[in-house]
Amino acid sequence: MRLAEYTDYTLRVLMYCAARPKQLVTIGELAEQHRVSKNHLMKIVNDLARQGVIETTRGRGGGLRLLQSPADIRIGDVVRASETDFRMVECFDARTNQCTLTPTCRLKHVLDAALKAYFKELDGATLADIAGPAHGKPRAAAPSRGTMISPPAGRRGVAAPVKGNRRFA
Amino acid sequence: MRLAEYTDYTLRVLMYCAARPKQLVTIGELAEQHRVSKNHLMKIVNDLARQGVIETTRGRGGGLRLLQSPADIRIGDVVRASETDFRMVECFDARTNQCTLTPTCRLKHVLDAALKAYFKELDGATLADIAGPAHGKPRAAAPSRGTMISPPAGRRGVAAPVKGNRRFA
Repeated sequence: MRLAEYTDYTLRVLMYCAARPKQLVTIGELAEQHRVSKNHLMKIVNDLARQGVIETTRGRGGGLRLLQSPADIRIGDVVRASETDFRMVECFDARTNQCTLTPTCRLKHVLDAALKAYFKELDGATLADIAGPAHGKPRAAAPSRGTMISPPAGRRGVAAPVKGNRRFA
Repeated sequence: MRLAEYTDYTLRVLMYCAARPKQLVTIGELAEQHRVSKNHLMKIVNDLARQGVIETTRGRGGGLRLLQSPADIRIGDVVRASETDFRMVECFDARTNQCTLTPTCRLKHVLDAALKAYFKELDGATLADIAGPAHGKPRAAAPSRGTMISPPAGRRGVAAPVKGNRRFA
């Protein structure tokens, strides 16, 4: 039971932006800071832009910034949007469920309640609660590469599926 | 974010036994009932025996049974023992953590609290709470194959790692 690396890095992108409310953050800067490929960050940024959480600006001097106040971005909502699989046991998916214990089993209700309790905690925290202020320069001097970020509307899947990879590559 | 298939089937083995307190359950019967290979069930049964949750008896007429009352087996404990990875984000593993946000980040505390809330729910339920009474015969007439279950003490890893496989095979 673990969160996908994708969710981990999605949260990091948002935290990094939240700590720098007055600047446009570049993909190059994020890649440098988190030692992750630009391609995989592009996928994350595209998804966040599609969800209306961030805004991207093209061209030299462009970058990304939060569209909402960090205090309005609930961690539970970020995790819900980022994770793709909440199947605790087979009967969570009624289409494929073949478990013969289902008629008398009450496990699903217990696991449902546990998942609700998990998200209740996450919904009680916002990006403002978890992201500290930026201090000093990024780890490495972020090269000004003028990375352009502005995915075509509705486009997804810039990179191959990345879930489960230790470092996205 | 999902539980491993291994945990799903571990819970099913325990529920099946709990519903049949007066009989020894065979691996063949479980395999038939849950359409999963005997090899993979052996791995689960070995682990449960090692943990002292079930007892196995060798030979013809042998099988397995719970060593504890279902009311004393907490679902949270079963899931803790069965799942191997609770890494929510990179900083959960201090040995490998390289996230540069760590010094000011409060995400780990939020995820820790969410995981605690999840297990608090599971710890509030026992096997007796979720396992219904057995009714009628198993799905298919369970052939009396006299499957022997009694792993050598301390032996593990009967089958290859099975986590993540849709049906263990």
